[in-house]
Amino acid sequence: MGINYFKRDPRDLKFVLSEHMDLDKILSYEPYRDFARDDFEMIIEEALKVCREKLGPAMQDGDREGVVYHEDGSVTVPESFHECWRVMAENGWMALSSNPEFGGQGLPALVGGLVGELFTGANMAFMTYPGLAVGNGRLIEHFGTDEDRALFVEKMYTGVWGGTMCLTEPDAGSDVGWLRTKAIPDPESEDPRIYRIEGTKRFITCGEHNLTENIIHLLLARIEGAPMGTKGISLFIVPKIWVNPDGSLGEPNDVICAGVEHKMGIHGSSTCTMNFGENGKCRGILLGEPNSGMAKMFQMMNEARMGCGVQALGIAASAYDTARTYAKERIQGPPFTNRKGDRVPIIKHEDVRRALMMLKAGTEAMRAMIGNLFFLIDVSMYDPDEETRKLADARVGLLTPLVKAYCSDFGYMLTREGIHVLGGVGYCSEFPAEQYARDILIVSIWEGTNYIQSLDLVGRKLGLDGGKAFQDWIGEVMNFTSEHKDDPDFGKDFKLVYKAAQATGDFAMRYMKYFQDGRFGLIPLSSKRFLECFAETVMGHLILQQGLIARDKLKEVKPDSADGIFYRGKMETARFFCRNILTNVFSRHTSLDQEDTSALDIPEEAF
Amino acid sequence: MGINYFKRDPRDLKFVLSEHMDLDKILSYEPYRDFARDDFEMIIEEALKVCREKLGPAMQDGDREGVVYHEDGSVTVPESFHECWRVMAENGWMALSSNPEFGGQGLPALVGGLVGELFTGANMAFMTYPGLAVGNGRLIEHFGTDEDRALFVEKMYTGVWGGTMCLTEPDAGSDVGWLRTKAIPDPESEDPRIYRIEGTKRFITCGEHNLTENIIHLLLARIEGAPMGTKGISLFIVPKIWVNPDGSLGEPNDVICAGVEHKMGIHGSSTCTMNFGENGKCRGILLGEPNSGMAKMFQMMNEARMGCGVQALGIAASAYDTARTYAKERIQGPPFTNRKGDRVPIIKHEDVRRALMMLKAGTEAMRAMIGNLFFLIDVSMYDPDEETRKLADARVGLLTPLVKAYCSDFGYMLTREGIHVLGGVGYCSEFPAEQYARDILIVSIWEGTNYIQSLDLVGRKLGLDGGKAFQDWIGEVMNFTSEHKDDPDFGKDFKLVYKAAQATGDFAMRYMKYFQDGRFGLIPLSSKRFLECFAETVMGHLILQQGLIARDKLKEVKPDSADGIFYRGKMETARFFCRNILTNVFSRHTSLDQEDTSALDIPEEAF
Repeated sequence: MGINYFKRDPRDLKFVLSEHMDLDKILSYEPYRDFARDDFEMIIEEALKVCREKLGPAMQDGDREGVVYHEDGSVTVPESFHECWRVMAENGWMALSSNPEFGGQGLPALVGGLVGELFTGANMAFMTYPGLAVGNGRLIEHFGTDEDRALFVEKMYTGVWGGTMCLTEPDAGSDVGWLRTKAIPDPESEDPRIYRIEGTKRFITCGEHNLTENIIHLLLARIEGAPMGTKGISLFIVPKIWVNPDGSLGEPNDVICAGVEHKMGIHGSSTCTMNFGENGKCRGILLGEPNSGMAKMFQMMNEARMGCGVQALGIAASAYDTARTYAKERIQGPPFTNRKGDRVPIIKHEDVRRALMMLKAGTEAMRAMIGNLFFLIDVSMYDPDEETRKLADARVGLLTPLVKAYCSDFGYMLTREGIHVLGGVGYCSEFPAEQYARDILIVSIWEGTNYIQSLDLVGRKLGLDGGKAFQDWIGEVMNFTSEHKDDPDFGKDFKLVYKAAQATGDFAMRYMKYFQDGRFGLIPLSSKRFLECFAETVMGHLILQQGLIARDKLKEVKPDSADGIFYRGKMETARFFCRNILTNVFSRHTSLDQEDTSALDIPEEAF
Repeated sequence: MGINYFKRDPRDLKFVLSEHMDLDKILSYEPYRDFARDDFEMIIEEALKVCREKLGPAMQDGDREGVVYHEDGSVTVPESFHECWRVMAENGWMALSSNPEFGGQGLPALVGGLVGELFTGANMAFMTYPGLAVGNGRLIEHFGTDEDRALFVEKMYTGVWGGTMCLTEPDAGSDVGWLRTKAIPDPESEDPRIYRIEGTKRFITCGEHNLTENIIHLLLARIEGAPMGTKGISLFIVPKIWVNPDGSLGEPNDVICAGVEHKMGIHGSSTCTMNFGENGKCRGILLGEPNSGMAKMFQMMNEARMGCGVQALGIAASAYDTARTYAKERIQGPPFTNRKGDRVPIIKHEDVRRALMMLKAGTEAMRAMIGNLFFLIDVSMYDPDEETRKLADARVGLLTPLVKAYCSDFGYMLTREGIHVLGGVGYCSEFPAEQYARDILIVSIWEGTNYIQSLDLVGRKLGLDGGKAFQDWIGEVMNFTSEHKDDPDFGKDFKLVYKAAQATGDFAMRYMKYFQDGRFGLIPLSSKRFLECFAETVMGHLILQQGLIARDKLKEVKPDSADGIFYRGKMETARFFCRNILTNVFSRHTSLDQEDTSALDIPEEAF
């Protein structure tokens, strides 16, 4: 095992969990009544231990060793990943928020999400393996027959088997509706749910590896004769090794890994080209009704998109940790404001301080948004009041594309700040600063590119239920910020968030108009910018809530106590976010104001 | 040799060279009178050929093979680099704008700069070797004795010997004044210019390699007894193998490479730890007067900083080329504005178009700024009018930190857009899209971090000569943009650039006030933002000049001719830049307006 660079201070995570979010509400819900606040604190501490002792030390190993493809189609993962897998599986760390009936821990989504930040921050490449296994298991639990559930789910929640999502094909990426993999009823089977599968899938994360004895692929294919496009796509359970009805393993299932990709980052996570049925012998089990595959896959995709936000936050927060640790130790010349002074740790340099604050405020704001999202998931599932559940569910729908796209794009920018704090050392591989940048970038691409997230937001989520979810949100922000506009500590900041909400609202209004006027081109040209404005305003709102909480709590503690320092830090962080990050909203709005179509007007040959 | 991905269309480069910049003026200067316009066009075509046939195919090779450190202290470069070096040396491609007396080509700086974009865009890692050899040679030509010049310069301009700049030490990075390497007069030499050198240098680019028989290090050290800080630093010529007075090679000079760094990118460029005088036998020749080393090194550093802008532009433009080529070939589903349409090349997708336009407008604006800088260098050196030379020189000083810092930071952002155009494929290593991101990042760190550039701008350049250079520039922009504010094609854009100039001017005014009021902390917290605003306004000014030229020229050609398409494209590009990139100025100005000091006010322990 290598050196551990994972050094997360859990204080802010605990603040989100039990000071910002309404944890008592969650604890009052039926499925969570057996838990107490202390349980969650303990889980976080134990998770940190796993990160420091296992996942963290395997992070650079994984990058340097990478996965290895062998001629027989097998793939070996970095050596240290085996021990990580063993510890995660044996101690039940994989399916934290899943059903205890099948070996999950039944924890609130909020707790699962926050712990997920720790695990992916310690070793994102490794976490793709358990992440996909559990995600798959949840889909089978939700849509499978009793038999499917009995055969697969517990094994996937407890680390016995792995899993994958097989969507992309060489000629069908973002436009999955064009996929060519086909399924025909298996002439040799009496079970009408068994099909023969034939096709090639590409970019299959964890498609092949040697962590588990079996891998359960969830695969999209078109049943012969089904309509073209997404409406004719069905979902199949395709085990690497066939699973007999008694749960024992049968024959290998004609699923061959044809190669792995060499990538910018996440070298320890295998990205495979998978051939199904090259020898005509690949069998799959239809999951649910024929032609209902896309909708089902979207459930998993939706969870995966939230997971993307968690991955991005995890890595960005680790980039912050690496930067702040280095900045406290590295001695260099005096700062700008004391030019004739002594050499100091570079954390006293103004620009380093600015960069660290960018990392701190950026990650804390993302954590607030992600914490809020997972909190709302718990509410949407278990609140006794139906209307409350419905409202929470709508807000979850609105926030999901923000969490996926904003956190991955902004997280990438933050890793760059982290590298800059280390300077030349940050460009070298001794510290993982540069690895964070290489690992995080994929998050903006997979599970639907960030552009697709922005279309999901503008084209679907914004207009749902007559735009109610968006209007509710903007109303809340406007009220909260007007109410506090003369706040002695945060007056400027409340005014900025108010203005940002106005700008975000104006974007939405214009989109309605563009749709009405048939000026469709203006929408996709600016939809990512709208998403960014929206996300920053959401975060501005939440971080000011945090700022007010911190101010109140500060009255109860000594300013120089650990809590006192945390709360004072939080107040400055809230200010920094509003004054230095949220402000980006205004440039994007100015751009929108130009209604520029030059990118479409330019002759194609001019590129 | 590997696959060539270098596919630069030189049309915009030729536009900058002979339609935007005043080439006739340059051709009227004494040293350039023997050249004709056609010569430059031919040079560009020939340079492109070298890129396509040699440098380009070696780019991925270099990344994959990397440099190899051997136990005897030797370093081998990627195999294909040898052929690149041979071709560059034999055909005189290394010292394009240097003195013909010593084997340089004597071309205008403008031509050298633009060709440099091609070479670094084709293979940045390789180009570090000739870049440092020539940079070193120029310093020796400028400050050396006749004997030094005779011994070293021609060999460094023509690829016989390599070179390095040895500044950084393990404990002295950005604060070079703290360096510990020492020099004492050599007791065994009668020549008072010969010193014994002892010390360790780190992060020495091209410090050791097997491309040339000798490497001439230019090294900063403190002569025993000299003052502390930068005032006591001297510059030495330290050959790897001693050079006898007759030019023949003597004994090895006790210079040992102790290791190479593993880095995020530029794997083919060696980054070395160098031990000088471990056995007490390292000799160096004092270059110029004792204790004058920093000022001399700054001449080279200044050129290197311009070179950084060229590197960043070169890579960003190659990222654009890779993206536009892919986008024209890759077929996917229909665009947003024609949802029921056929599958199309993704260049017809609105967000891909936006990303390509970002890359096109971004690189063309940077090329305009860099072209302008190199043009001004020619003016500053050879214009017959002294006042004109002086003004040009002051403008060069102002633009240099912008070119270094803005292009490297923005270039990194652009490589990300390039990756996104390719999607998942962009994250994989088949195409060099991800390599561009890894290679370019170092440019924002080396030759003085971008923060240091911003302090150079604010702390030195802005105030020179009572702020005249800045005021001249802002006056020009204000006049030009007011004059055209009702332009039928670019009215909106002129107004935006006018407002951006106002914002940039306001930054400068505030800095004066902060200096006067002793509110020093606000300066380093925002200096990078000021630099960015300044650079974008400079580019907005230049790209609107280009837009007007394109409009005029369009009248003389058929709209669908190659030139017609280029000029129409340029007009849209100018609009896109002003409406989508320049607009970032306004958010930064809003942030400045908050006069936020939270990053300094926060307790250090809160990080």
